[in-house]
Order: sequence, then structure tokens, then C-alpha cells
Amino acid sequence: MKTSDPLGLACPVPRTDADRVLMGHGAGGRLFAELFDTVIGPPIGADPVAEDAAIVAVDGVGVVISTDSFVVTPHDFPGGDIGSLAVHGTVNDVAMRGARPVALTLAYIIEEGFPTAELARITASAARAAEQACVHIVAGDTKVVERGGADGIYINTTGIGELLPHAVVTAAGAEPGDAVLVSGPIGRHGAAVLAAREGFVFDLRSDSCALAGMVEDMIRASGRRVHVLRDATRGGLAAVLNELAHASGAGIRIEELAVAVPDQVAAVCEVLGIDPFHLACEGTLVAVVAPEAADDVLAAMRARPEGEGAHRIGTVTDSPAGRVTARTGIGATRVVDMPLGEQLPRIC
Amino acid sequence: MKTSDPLGLACPVPRTDADRVLMGHGAGGRLFAELFDTVIGPPIGADPVAEDAAIVAVDGVGVVISTDSFVVTPHDFPGGDIGSLAVHGTVNDVAMRGARPVALTLAYIIEEGFPTAELARITASAARAAEQACVHIVAGDTKVVERGGADGIYINTTGIGELLPHAVVTAAGAEPGDAVLVSGPIGRHGAAVLAAREGFVFDLRSDSCALAGMVEDMIRASGRRVHVLRDATRGGLAAVLNELAHASGAGIRIEELAVAVPDQVAAVCEVLGIDPFHLACEGTLVAVVAPEAADDVLAAMRARPEGEGAHRIGTVTDSPAGRVTARTGIGATRVVDMPLGEQLPRIC
Repeated sequence: MKTSDPLGLACPVPRTDADRVLMGHGAGGRLFAELFDTVIGPPIGADPVAEDAAIVAVDGVGVVISTDSFVVTPHDFPGGDIGSLAVHGTVNDVAMRGARPVALTLAYIIEEGFPTAELARITASAARAAEQACVHIVAGDTKVVERGGADGIYINTTGIGELLPHAVVTAAGAEPGDAVLVSGPIGRHGAAVLAAREGFVFDLRSDSCALAGMVEDMIRASGRRVHVLRDATRGGLAAVLNELAHASGAGIRIEELAVAVPDQVAAVCEVLGIDPFHLACEGTLVAVVAPEAADDVLAAMRARPEGEGAHRIGTVTDSPAGRVTARTGIGATRVVDMPLGEQLPRIC
Repeated sequence: MKTSDPLGLACPVPRTDADRVLMGHGAGGRLFAELFDTVIGPPIGADPVAEDAAIVAVDGVGVVISTDSFVVTPHDFPGGDIGSLAVHGTVNDVAMRGARPVALTLAYIIEEGFPTAELARITASAARAAEQACVHIVAGDTKVVERGGADGIYINTTGIGELLPHAVVTAAGAEPGDAVLVSGPIGRHGAAVLAAREGFVFDLRSDSCALAGMVEDMIRASGRRVHVLRDATRGGLAAVLNELAHASGAGIRIEELAVAVPDQVAAVCEVLGIDPFHLACEGTLVAVVAPEAADDVLAAMRARPEGEGAHRIGTVTDSPAGRVTARTGIGATRVVDMPLGEQLPRIC
């Protein structure tokens, strides 16, 4: 949009404008929750407790289903691209209900003039990621819009899966005393995309990968004692912990120093002034498990390459309900807040 | 894109440029088929015979699944809007496999600055359409892109459903001697959108509606004798007849005068130089049924408001395989060709 204010000082879309959708509404933080609770949710009759995936009865069988659109920019980043990310993101959302992903749909909105070779490359990347995750791409759609209408390509994937035996996994399942586990170091996807966008040269790759196989091993190791699974995508670890504390009506207390932040992620965060707890992961999950199952689940995670950095970061408490706190390195306690939402657009 | 050729005479994206995606690739005609067969299909290992929906085994049950993105412009047109259309389009694609749609996902890509009131209105329209079609919206996603990045809003819906008892419906199911039925007059959606886009004032509404209830009645009336169901969306009646002739390895012969074209549709087509057989419908289906079942199926269709104009338009022949011909009003025979693709962008 052209403006008579080239420095953007007047900000044509004020952040306080309640009548317009803002970039921050799409970042999975508090702004999105507000938009969902006031605008999108009520007509649909949707539950404000957002799970990563829904469970629908089809012919008497529970089918797990989840949808996500991918608008990441740039399309290529160290460790992945929009095609592989679109598969991993949805496969993981299905897996986070304690399910085995079975099939995906793949829908493209492409801008006129987009190079066919790039479309072929992205499609091949999505196909490879699906094959590695043992899911079939069974249906698709292709729309083309005019030049300038889609920033190259947007991808929607929707996944369906079948519940794993003995899995009872929900965002509301955290119980006081449960152990809070993380499958690896945080912030790698967000930092890799931001570094690629800003042209930084860091030895840093997105963690984007399918987590369904690891989830299957975790459930096999301890069944119903896995209470919550969430991949720490938009909004990062902070958003996920806040969401599950809120959904479960429990508190969460973590040890800040127990959360592994790779040096390169910390460096990107320092340069850009971002909290690593707010950075998206695309191959790292948070699990809340019964305390007696923690060791078995950690062993199951560590037995796989995507979970080799798994560790315990905290405990579910009975109060303060809905609040996440961290014990810092110097022994103080700080509140880990839900990110507002606008700082990291187009990360997935 | 700025160009030094303001009249567009040099055409920066030549239509013969095989290295770029063109508007016509998204119109569901021959160009799309070519893109799919050469670029998108091979990495995925997809069958070139495209059904409206796939059937996936989940825990031993056949789950029908279909996805579609909606980029229609304008967002509002007589008889519907992008919200209701996004529900009807996917519900109908699921129904066309002989299934009862059960649930939908709803994913938005929204442009920064989009009015919240318009988002609320579109969401309410989608919710109303879903309720009327007896499907639940069970999951969703919202992404926001910068101004200019999504022409307001794009919507993806993915639907899942359960197979109706005795339904064996596939695009490849047409057999010589079968009756070809249409559920109503053609071209109403495409004509209504084009008229709204051009600012024409016609007394014309899109036929956009859910067809799942009618499909259920049709299958109940004659079970396996319903061989093919297709809603005549992108590419219109001509595309659907060609696709099913091709998939079934059969010929189709129709009576041109038996195809009802409303006067207002004919008028829009005359003004814009378009063949009404190429105009999209969004609430009108083609059924290929065993000849002895034709009367029962027509009666089931006519008993519902969305099928009250149902009639027989032709017959499946054994040759020429893959070819659709029409007997014209003066008794001549013409070939009904697959539309190339580019004449009607952004119709759904």
C-alpha cells in the first residue's frame, strides 16, 4: 500500500484499532485468542479451549482431524521449506491428540507467474516429508490468484489420523504433580526463519520434523499416563505452557535453566530483542505426564533422534491456576506470560 | 507488477510460458490437468483420475475426505458469499463420493487491515451454511499476511464424511446405456459471480447450496445403481462430462436442448462471450445412473427444492471413448470440449 508517510510514522493500521485484523492476530498469542473468542468462535459455537486437533465420530470410529495454513516467508530456510513444514506442522498437530496420522490433504493458493520449477520442488519436498512421516497425500486443490495476490504460494494441509490404543490426551489433562517434559532445545524453527529473513549467517537449522513416531513410542511406553502433548509452534514454549495451564486449571512451575536454548538461538534472540520462550518450534513437543511415568516417557523420547535432547523442565502445581512461573538462574521467580502476538509474523 | 509496457501488449507472462503458473492453471480445465499430471501429481504419486473426494481407511472404516480453497472475487454475490460457498463446495465434494458429510475444518488466510465486521459476517455465513448442511465445523486456523497479500480473505475448508450404505460411486463408474441426469438449470453460480464482478444488474442468484441431503435420498432410492455423482463446479457441465467420460473410458451423448440454461445465464454468457456449458454451478450435480433406476432417482431429486428442476440430458455410449457429443437443436452433432481453463478466474 502506498502512503504519504514513507517512514511509517503515522502507522496506517493502529495496533489499537479493534475494527481491523492485525498481523498480530495471526501469531497464535493473546490477540488471536481475543479474535477467536469474540469474532470467529461464537458463530461456529466453538469451544474456547483450543486443542491442536479435534476428534470426530465417523461411522462409530474416532477420527482425529487438524488443519493449518502455511504462509511462511521466506519459502526456504535452513532445515526445511514451506512444503516440508506444511506436512510436519499438520502431522504433528494430529499426533498431539495421541493419534497416528494417516492421510493429508494438500491445497495450494499460487500467485500467477510463480515458477513451475519452484512449485515442483515444494511439492517434492512435501511428498518426501509425507513419506517419511508414513502419511499419504490423498486429496488436493490448486487455486491461482493474480500477481501480488499470494506472496508466491500459500499451502493448507489438513490431516486425519486414528487414536492410538490407550491414548487419552487433551490440553486439559494436566494434573498437579505431573512432570513437564520437553523433547529438545527450543526456538530453532523461529530463529532459523528469522535469521534467513534477515540475511544473518548462523549455523542454525529449523527443528521442523514429524513427531508422530516418537508420540507412538511415548504412548506405548506409558499409555494413559501421558496427559498432555503439545508441539511448541506459534508463540513458542511460553504460549504452549500458558494454554495448557489455562485449559487444565492448574499452575506450571518450570526451572528456567532446565530449558535448553541453543547458543545460536540465543544469539538471534539477542540481536532481534526476542524472548526465546516465544520462538516457534516445529519439531519439539511439550509432554505433561504422570510423575511415575516420567522416566519411561523420557527414555522413549531419547531413544529417537528427534527426542535425544528430551529433559524435564518443571512440574504442574495446583495453584496459581492458569499461571506459569519460572525459577530463574539466580533463584528468583518470574511469570512466563502468554506472548501478545505481533512480534513474529509469517513464521509458519 | 510494474512494467514499461502500460498497455500490456508485450504480455509479461506469455500464455505459452511453460515455466510459470498462469491464471488458467487454477480454473479446473485442460491447463490444470496438464499442471497436475506433470508437476504436482508425480511427486505425490497421485492417480491422474481425480475424484472429488478420496476414501481413506481409518481404524478400518472408510473415511471420505476432500479439500478446497476459496478465492472467489467479489466476496459477496447474489445468492451467497465466500463463507457459505466454502462450506457448500466442500460438503458437496464429500457427498459426490456417495457420502454423508460429518465435519469440516475452516482455515482463514486474512489480509492485515481486513474489517473485523466482515470477518464476523463471513464466519456467521459459513456457520449457518454448515448448520443447514448438518455438518460441524470442528477445527480451524487463522493466518494473517501483510496488506496486499491475500485480497482480503482466502478460505480453505476440508470435509470428512461417512459412506452411505450401498453407495459405490466413482468418476470411473459410467457404463454404456446409463442415463445422464442433471439436478437443475446450469451456470447460475458462474453467471452470478461474473455479473456481480462486472456490475451487471440481473435477476440472477448463485445456485450455491448443499447437495448432501439430496444425494442421500438418491442413494436410498437406488443404491448401487447410482454410478457417478459430480457437482458441476469449475469448468461447468462441459468439464464434468469430459472428466467422467475420460475416467470411465466411455462416450457421452447429450441433447443440447435438454440442458436447461436460464435466460439470465444465457444473457450474461452472450454479453461476455462465454459458453454456458463452461460456467460453474455450486448446487447442481450430474448423476450417471443405471437406466432402470433413472425414474426413481429423478423422483428422489425432484422431491427436494434443490432438485426440482432435475431432468435427463443424455446417455452413456460405448464409443467414442472419452468423448462428449451433443445433438444440437437443428439435429447436428457437435463435440462438447473440455474448457481450456483461463476464461473464468476466481469463480470459487
